[in-house]
Amino acid sequence: MQIGFIGLGNLGLPIAENLLQQHAGMFVYNRTGSKTKPLEEKGAKACHSIKELALACDVVFTIVSNDAAITGITEGENGIAANLKQGGIHVSMSTILPSTSEALFAYHQQYNNNYIACPVAGRPEAARARKLNFMVSGANEIINSIKPLLNDAGAAGIWEYGDKPGSSNVAKLCTNYMIAAALQSMSEGISLAQKSGIDEKQWMQMITSTLFNCGIYINYGNIVLNKAFQPAAFSLELGLKDATLIKQQADATGANMPLATLIQREYKELLDKGYGDYDWRALGLSIQ
Amino acid sequence: MQIGFIGLGNLGLPIAENLLQQHAGMFVYNRTGSKTKPLEEKGAKACHSIKELALACDVVFTIVSNDAAITGITEGENGIAANLKQGGIHVSMSTILPSTSEALFAYHQQYNNNYIACPVAGRPEAARARKLNFMVSGANEIINSIKPLLNDAGAAGIWEYGDKPGSSNVAKLCTNYMIAAALQSMSEGISLAQKSGIDEKQWMQMITSTLFNCGIYINYGNIVLNKAFQPAAFSLELGLKDATLIKQQADATGANMPLATLIQREYKELLDKGYGDYDWRALGLSIQ
Repeated sequence: MQIGFIGLGNLGLPIAENLLQQHAGMFVYNRTGSKTKPLEEKGAKACHSIKELALACDVVFTIVSNDAAITGITEGENGIAANLKQGGIHVSMSTILPSTSEALFAYHQQYNNNYIACPVAGRPEAARARKLNFMVSGANEIINSIKPLLNDAGAAGIWEYGDKPGSSNVAKLCTNYMIAAALQSMSEGISLAQKSGIDEKQWMQMITSTLFNCGIYINYGNIVLNKAFQPAAFSLELGLKDATLIKQQADATGANMPLATLIQREYKELLDKGYGDYDWRALGLSIQ
Repeated sequence: MQIGFIGLGNLGLPIAENLLQQHAGMFVYNRTGSKTKPLEEKGAKACHSIKELALACDVVFTIVSNDAAITGITEGENGIAANLKQGGIHVSMSTILPSTSEALFAYHQQYNNNYIACPVAGRPEAARARKLNFMVSGANEIINSIKPLLNDAGAAGIWEYGDKPGSSNVAKLCTNYMIAAALQSMSEGISLAQKSGIDEKQWMQMITSTLFNCGIYINYGNIVLNKAFQPAAFSLELGLKDATLIKQQADATGANMPLATLIQREYKELLDKGYGDYDWRALGLSIQ
């Protein structure tokens, strides 16, 4: 079975490196060609186009930055779907709209290929530590066939959301919404503590020892407390992209989400102020 | 040392019961007199007025519903301060503004008495399980002298915020803000999951197994998932009271808190819709 990997960004690269350890000779492609170099040195074969890669592969993983990018590399005569080996599998790890996954699934069907939505939760350091969480949706037998590959890619958890292609994208958007909401609330809480004259670190120490004793408040909380927003592993610009997807999904389904609206507005304001290359955990920065 | 307890509401009653186990003969008072009955049966002495109780006591605990109530029972010729034994200690457990604690501290000083702000985190079931968290501020030697009593009252943790009388009230308001923000975000996230057609319980199971693996999302999350908002242990009306204190504190200190503003507005809307006697964990109900 030949494997391909497209998208060697901050998160794509360590996932591809994980796969490469078990799958020497894996095919790789990135829009900026120089990014394939570290993988070639470890035995990967770099391709010069999406088409070249797809023609060589049974399974193609993609992790690109947005809905337009994933649609662009999947569709068309030079895209993944038209060139993947018959019965091939496209595993799409990007955070995108559920409706985009539905459309890509249908597009692949025209070529008798398979599409699995497989958004991933975890930052680059989690990828390197093999502590990623993959959310998957699509045909059950196809999911089962790729599970060993997801373990190779660094899975700590594989969470199955059924055969509706966009279901795992819903789960991912809901999760990113929760993270952003926690970031905004921490930032405001810390600000109130500071401006009221108490030691905000002592207060965070208390809440993360009690009701808020979990990674989002402990680890992300430390970043927010220390304003350690650069370099970005996941940029504020991508944070706004996700906040916009969340809002689009809310609007598409009739979900009333005033806090999601607030988060999108705050991200927009920070981007306008020039913080686009800060980490998305800088969410509350404009209020401080 | 004679101990008194004023305020036998949902949380006051189990705390008083904890104290009574170690301090038979403790004095108790409640505005609605019948509430002292269960404690009298266990050996407490019921008083008919604040003054009567204060005259008998070295240490008085209070847990009443708001700033006006605590000020009303502390000040004046029939209040705690004027009647407490010389050098006595008033331990105020209510969630109130820091500035109210500063004023009560100064008022007690006129009578050579001591005031400790000691807001408490924990619901009635936590009180019965002796898993309360007390935040304390005030004179260090007075805090040290009452610590054994706080342990008797059901402390799992005692968190010291220094000698500025209102500091622990700041910590408590910040904490309640964080809880309300988590409630709002869970409600919106669950709503988006539901309306997008995925199993919201499965999604919550995933996030509470990973980044959100803590009590606020696990325990409070179950309440939100199951809409188990009645009977209220801490009513939505009191939730609005706290949200209003948080907003007042933000305004008083110049903290910019758009999410806190949103929370206050949501509580207000639910109260207007007649949900005042629901538990405050119903916060997101108006958007569902």
